[in-house]
Amino acid sequence: MNKSMTRKIIEDHYISGNMVAGEEVAIRIDHTLTHDVTGTQAYLAFETLGIPRVKTEKSVSYIDHNLLYTDNKNMDDHLYLQSIAKKYGLYLSRAGNGICHIVHLERFGIPGKTLLGSDSHTPTGGAIGMLSIGAGGMDVAMAMAGEPLYIKMPYIINVNLKGKLRGGVSAKDIILEMLRRIGVKGGLGKVFEYTGQGLDCLSVYDRATIANMGAEMGATTSIFPSDETVHKFFTHQKREADWVELYPDKDAYYDGVIEIDLNTLEPMVAKPHMPDNVVKVSELKDVKVNQVFIGSCTNASYTDFVKAAKIMENKVVHDDVSLSIAPGSRQIFSMLLRDGIISKLVASGARVLECGCGPCVGIGQAPNTGGISLRTSNRNFRGRGGTLDAYLYLASPEVAAATALTGYITDPRDVIDSKLLENIEEPREYIINDNMVINPIETNENIEIIRGPNIKPMPVNDPMEEIIEARVVAKFGDNITTDDIIPASAQFSALRSNIPAISEITFGRIDPGFYSRAKEYKKSIIIGGENYGQGSSREHAAIAPMYLGVKAVIAKSMARIHKNNLVNHGVIPLLFADSAAYDSIEQGDCLYIEDAISQIRTKKVKILNKTKNTFFETIVDLTDREVELIIAGGRLRFIQNKSKINKHY
Amino acid sequence: MNKSMTRKIIEDHYISGNMVAGEEVAIRIDHTLTHDVTGTQAYLAFETLGIPRVKTEKSVSYIDHNLLYTDNKNMDDHLYLQSIAKKYGLYLSRAGNGICHIVHLERFGIPGKTLLGSDSHTPTGGAIGMLSIGAGGMDVAMAMAGEPLYIKMPYIINVNLKGKLRGGVSAKDIILEMLRRIGVKGGLGKVFEYTGQGLDCLSVYDRATIANMGAEMGATTSIFPSDETVHKFFTHQKREADWVELYPDKDAYYDGVIEIDLNTLEPMVAKPHMPDNVVKVSELKDVKVNQVFIGSCTNASYTDFVKAAKIMENKVVHDDVSLSIAPGSRQIFSMLLRDGIISKLVASGARVLECGCGPCVGIGQAPNTGGISLRTSNRNFRGRGGTLDAYLYLASPEVAAATALTGYITDPRDVIDSKLLENIEEPREYIINDNMVINPIETNENIEIIRGPNIKPMPVNDPMEEIIEARVVAKFGDNITTDDIIPASAQFSALRSNIPAISEITFGRIDPGFYSRAKEYKKSIIIGGENYGQGSSREHAAIAPMYLGVKAVIAKSMARIHKNNLVNHGVIPLLFADSAAYDSIEQGDCLYIEDAISQIRTKKVKILNKTKNTFFETIVDLTDREVELIIAGGRLRFIQNKSKINKHY
Repeated sequence: MNKSMTRKIIEDHYISGNMVAGEEVAIRIDHTLTHDVTGTQAYLAFETLGIPRVKTEKSVSYIDHNLLYTDNKNMDDHLYLQSIAKKYGLYLSRAGNGICHIVHLERFGIPGKTLLGSDSHTPTGGAIGMLSIGAGGMDVAMAMAGEPLYIKMPYIINVNLKGKLRGGVSAKDIILEMLRRIGVKGGLGKVFEYTGQGLDCLSVYDRATIANMGAEMGATTSIFPSDETVHKFFTHQKREADWVELYPDKDAYYDGVIEIDLNTLEPMVAKPHMPDNVVKVSELKDVKVNQVFIGSCTNASYTDFVKAAKIMENKVVHDDVSLSIAPGSRQIFSMLLRDGIISKLVASGARVLECGCGPCVGIGQAPNTGGISLRTSNRNFRGRGGTLDAYLYLASPEVAAATALTGYITDPRDVIDSKLLENIEEPREYIINDNMVINPIETNENIEIIRGPNIKPMPVNDPMEEIIEARVVAKFGDNITTDDIIPASAQFSALRSNIPAISEITFGRIDPGFYSRAKEYKKSIIIGGENYGQGSSREHAAIAPMYLGVKAVIAKSMARIHKNNLVNHGVIPLLFADSAAYDSIEQGDCLYIEDAISQIRTKKVKILNKTKNTFFETIVDLTDREVELIIAGGRLRFIQNKSKINKHY
Repeated sequence: MNKSMTRKIIEDHYISGNMVAGEEVAIRIDHTLTHDVTGTQAYLAFETLGIPRVKTEKSVSYIDHNLLYTDNKNMDDHLYLQSIAKKYGLYLSRAGNGICHIVHLERFGIPGKTLLGSDSHTPTGGAIGMLSIGAGGMDVAMAMAGEPLYIKMPYIINVNLKGKLRGGVSAKDIILEMLRRIGVKGGLGKVFEYTGQGLDCLSVYDRATIANMGAEMGATTSIFPSDETVHKFFTHQKREADWVELYPDKDAYYDGVIEIDLNTLEPMVAKPHMPDNVVKVSELKDVKVNQVFIGSCTNASYTDFVKAAKIMENKVVHDDVSLSIAPGSRQIFSMLLRDGIISKLVASGARVLECGCGPCVGIGQAPNTGGISLRTSNRNFRGRGGTLDAYLYLASPEVAAATALTGYITDPRDVIDSKLLENIEEPREYIINDNMVINPIETNENIEIIRGPNIKPMPVNDPMEEIIEARVVAKFGDNITTDDIIPASAQFSALRSNIPAISEITFGRIDPGFYSRAKEYKKSIIIGGENYGQGSSREHAAIAPMYLGVKAVIAKSMARIHKNNLVNHGVIPLLFADSAAYDSIEQGDCLYIEDAISQIRTKKVKILNKTKNTFFETIVDLTDREVELIIAGGRLRFIQNKSKINKHY
């Protein structure tokens, strides 16, 4: 029996492959989710497949990221998404209804089911025992078309939580402790399964905080048991019928175990510019902040704001700080309104933003020049907040509230009796109101898709050539994020439906010459260090380089979702066999690959650096299936070829 | 004694001049207000004056317009404003505290005092019997320096309100009726004094709606008596000591009278693209809307939202409509929170934005391409909402709420029993909380001004030359707005502290070649039709052309504030003596003015059109004082010259 929760769900959804860690398995996807800044590409891909209706049990299109509407493009995108939902049988969660991950937990998710989302924080669904995985839009489009998801069978790591959190210490500190121990690439190829008696003190939302930021370790996902806490949550949500119990077997096999003693945790903070740059708040000295944000899919629950309100009650935000708050969902917002919590926070000077993602991805509330911002969100990459030279710190809502009061990063226990922060409970009665969700209607071919002028067709790559001769357009160091490749922000996220336009800002923040060099070189190759492509799932970080002629990315290691996105769009992801080769390559070098198609099928590719007149070896860490996708020129062209074959024979 | 309220206040504040309608008078200014998108220029001007502390009774710097922060620039501006307030003895109303005009009414305004604000909707203060006038930033800077305000003594028009509004008809319909009758330039040189028994049904906020949109008629200002309604308002605000009674004398002299019978009014709407394009809602057929906005300094009061909530209760925003709401001040927001009104609106699907101006000036919630938006704000100029080809309609909160439900522009009486909209009252107890206002501190020279990289010094014009030879850079039709000259919007308003940068978008929406032509011509002249420069007070619409070498604007008629702004920055405003000359001029023509300085002093300027080889006459509708400002090269250079003279002799 000895099965982990992850293994149980994968077995339940198994289609093909070898269920051995590191090998590819194909699984059935029950639910999908998309949001407005990755969704448009997913549906542009889906449209090309000629399928009349989504084939999943539930597919939900959320509008939650770009709610600013600084010009026509946002609302045009949202109307496109709404018309797509109507035509193809999706649920649409309207702007203002809340953040996809939170709303999906609350109103759609089901323990034991699989969820694929075009957002790297999709693993948030692990809080209710759902196997929830982030992917690029193309993978989600395929899942909606009824195709399986191909993943590497993960290594399954048990995280055993012991003890009980003390007042002022919270779920955020657990995941920051994980990041401190394991680092931003420590989760690659792994699923973290949380168990242990420490779960008793963690609500579904607390677990969501932890599952959410598992993405920051590069994990495939994280998962929690569907236990009595989850049962109670479903009862609150008036979805008792959807609840399914899920535990690992008592003797479940794990590939590793991590133990965390909650009693000993203290308030933590991730310093700029990486989420694993974690220290105790008490180790920081006199960090004066300009801005505090409480919100995002990581920490915007009812109790998060109740705790913040307790800390701030009858006090006021420091003169030098701007505090903004954004509840995670309209359900949470409604309950906070009902219970007077928003009133209290407003009385203390909090600025209330819409229920959405906003500031977390630089869509609003960008800090001042060189400013310091403390946030409860999940990423603090350079520029993530919309201001390139700002400094972002990540911490719990308690630390955020205390900091907003004093103007310096502050341990909440220094401003309030920590006992007052213990046993903060979920509301007794939840407000259930789904009137901002538009339900699917009968499939109707006559529904017209609304396509604003900024919505351009998805470009499709050419098939791979036998000889690749291309120049090194850029060479980067370690931990290049998808924010580095295609920045978030209000301005750029509004271009997500328009690859020709967004391609112009590719790497713009860290390498402003990239676009013009790529245009000049016509065919090019990117060189990366460790953990290339970490961060968000945005497939624009693959599509835009592809559109600009990038044929391959050669790196020391690569983040999972980004690698999939490259494959889906026919860009070859290669790994250095020997990192010394990395050192020898320079920007501008001309690289030459002979017999490229035959070589890639052998999973090893030998490359001639014509400029340096040296050879080096690279590894193709791909399955045969993935190799064929690349050879075809990406997944869309692969499918098109298949259907042509079907038509001809 | 036959004095109007306006005359009483002007007499009380009289410094010099001739109190005859049309002649210039100088008056003392008691209060000033600025906001974040006009304020930076006002304070950049003030800084050059070398004065250690503002000389007004109260000067308040509000942060209310651009609260999106899509990059570093917004917050940099706000930090600049906050440091200026600290150094020079101003009050600072922090982001989130509300819209300047509303907060000034609630917490600062005093009947019978004078208020000068760097915003065209400053007349909102007329709701409590304050003489409240909009101006460019330079005029406000001068008022803060203790200089008088120079205005033309207005023609004073009595608006006699009779009867009582019926349910579903509201203050907005009164001012829309005024606009229907009088038009967008019908108020030039006038003050509207509202009296009559109809006032009994109008709260301070209702009166604010009317006074606010007096600006849309080009009026100098509008004013209401400080009567028992105002007294009650001050009691609610716990500012009883600030209340002063103010009525016109029984036999007050007026230059004209307008009568409106409130009983007969119906719900009205201003159609695109002018606020005076007014019809009854019942005259519209099947106008399908994409977006509804309830907010702005015009209509964002407690009762406005109570009425909207009554109409929407237990219903939901139409699937095809996005409804956003933004309370006018934190006080209003707090009371709406307390009384469950926000909860109700959220339950009906309203999206809650920050207390601020936002969508009204295209700072967020820009409609979709070609979209239709119905708004409770005050202007529907083309592009004002952030999307150039969108269609903006203006209406009351009742019409807005009804429209949000049906998806078509709707008379509220068609969706709710109009009796339910009668006698909606202000809350019994107001929430008083000024903790988001930073009070002035002792003047301290050591306070450092925080100046982000986007904050550039204000450019100063050169003295006028004896011979002006310049080419016609552009010829425009009637009713060119300051939005046409320098658009609002999130993107552009963030450039307000940087004239070199913002000058690049001058006329960008209606004449994209303007900038490059102006650069090419070096010295140029703009030709305008009727009512040139109507709309907002933004002096960037004068400074940016000046910076690009525009020496004069010749138009058929000109809006008051914009003309003052041109004078303040040394650009000559001229009026065609004969409009036939307008017809003869073409873009690119070379105009030549001999003896320009002598001519302008005679108030007539003869111009040679060298290209056409014809002469035409223009009128200088300026006082001697204004002429000397222009000759000096604008107000700043005039003051600098004066202080040089003082130093030398």
